[in-house]
Amino acid sequence: MRTLYHIPLSPYSRKVRLALAEKRIPFELRIERFWERRPDFLAMNPACTVPVLQEENGFTIADSYAICEYLDEAYPDMPLFGRTLGERAEVRRLIAWFDHKFHAEVTRNLLYEKQLKRLLGRGNPDAAAMRAGYQNMKMHMEYIGDLAENRAWLAGSQISLADFAAAAQLSSLDYIGDVKWELSEPARDWYARMKSRPCFRGLLADRISGLAPPDHYSDPDF
Amino acid sequence: MRTLYHIPLSPYSRKVRLALAEKRIPFELRIERFWERRPDFLAMNPACTVPVLQEENGFTIADSYAICEYLDEAYPDMPLFGRTLGERAEVRRLIAWFDHKFHAEVTRNLLYEKQLKRLLGRGNPDAAAMRAGYQNMKMHMEYIGDLAENRAWLAGSQISLADFAAAAQLSSLDYIGDVKWELSEPARDWYARMKSRPCFRGLLADRISGLAPPDHYSDPDF
Repeated sequence: MRTLYHIPLSPYSRKVRLALAEKRIPFELRIERFWERRPDFLAMNPACTVPVLQEENGFTIADSYAICEYLDEAYPDMPLFGRTLGERAEVRRLIAWFDHKFHAEVTRNLLYEKQLKRLLGRGNPDAAAMRAGYQNMKMHMEYIGDLAENRAWLAGSQISLADFAAAAQLSSLDYIGDVKWELSEPARDWYARMKSRPCFRGLLADRISGLAPPDHYSDPDF
Repeated sequence: MRTLYHIPLSPYSRKVRLALAEKRIPFELRIERFWERRPDFLAMNPACTVPVLQEENGFTIADSYAICEYLDEAYPDMPLFGRTLGERAEVRRLIAWFDHKFHAEVTRNLLYEKQLKRLLGRGNPDAAAMRAGYQNMKMHMEYIGDLAENRAWLAGSQISLADFAAAAQLSSLDYIGDVKWELSEPARDWYARMKSRPCFRGLLADRISGLAPPDHYSDPDF
């Protein structure tokens, strides 16, 4: 069986899970405690990060960017990057926005400080980083709201990996109760539409031992 | 004329300059002091980062990932991402390695601390970050050396954007004299091959007012 090595709260793993599910490509999940640096996992991905996708024939792809581009080339039904050069440039600009800018300014300051740091044995949350994360979330929710108000989906008229990249970051934060949905009604409406898609079911069913999500986490009408 | 908005020391701008030059696509450079947040530039790229590419017809692409994928789709002669799915996955894994892992662990700790921080008015270099940058460089030079010893080019038998992504990070650091070439002879030999390619000429001719590079910077036999 095709296997995705992941951890449940990794936004990059979530992006790939959504892309696989949207394309109806069957896969099974395997939790990889990448901080333990398992030798067989290091051989698959010297960067020792999740996600890593292993196809049934053993072919392995590391890094969520490489995996998502691979999925669209290997399984072109239900294209997730747009069709024209202009659409594709806009989808990828927004993927970079959410994977890197949103992650550095919001996700990292909250999810890493509150959860991952403990797992990795790197000490206590940094209060200044957390304040910055909440502060930066405001601009980002407004930007998502602006896009959602002016377009059918974040990158244009079709759903794309830009939507899944954004939803992946937000769903990780939503699990720990850290998304201020009241900051933007259009962003909240767009996320409600994302949550009600079949591809989202796996994420909404996630439960991490010892860390329960807030009640609204799995409710599409939140 | 096609225009690339850049700053000379930006490794992501350098990656795009190398890709354009390797594909023999003519372009002119325009320096964009992105920290001044010029309204017309913000309209082209809300993330307000360089590089941004503007085609002659006005079509604008922001973010080096989106630009490089666009270039290979719009100008498929001289493909830079490999041909098979396996080659393409490996090229992209290494692009992510250099754009993000190398950048976060090495380039940011040296180039940002020593040069960009001053430009952005964010205070003095952090000595601990600089020490970490030099320390991390060791592993990275060894990894580049391992790849270069076992393959014709970093991602396989053909030159690819993985080579340009790596060379772009290194050339920015080399301009400020911060690459310890003695750490890996195979990495140094690979970089000498990169420097002697015609596409590298523009980078080697760069001179920043008030900041001269070391003598070896533009010498292919360094």
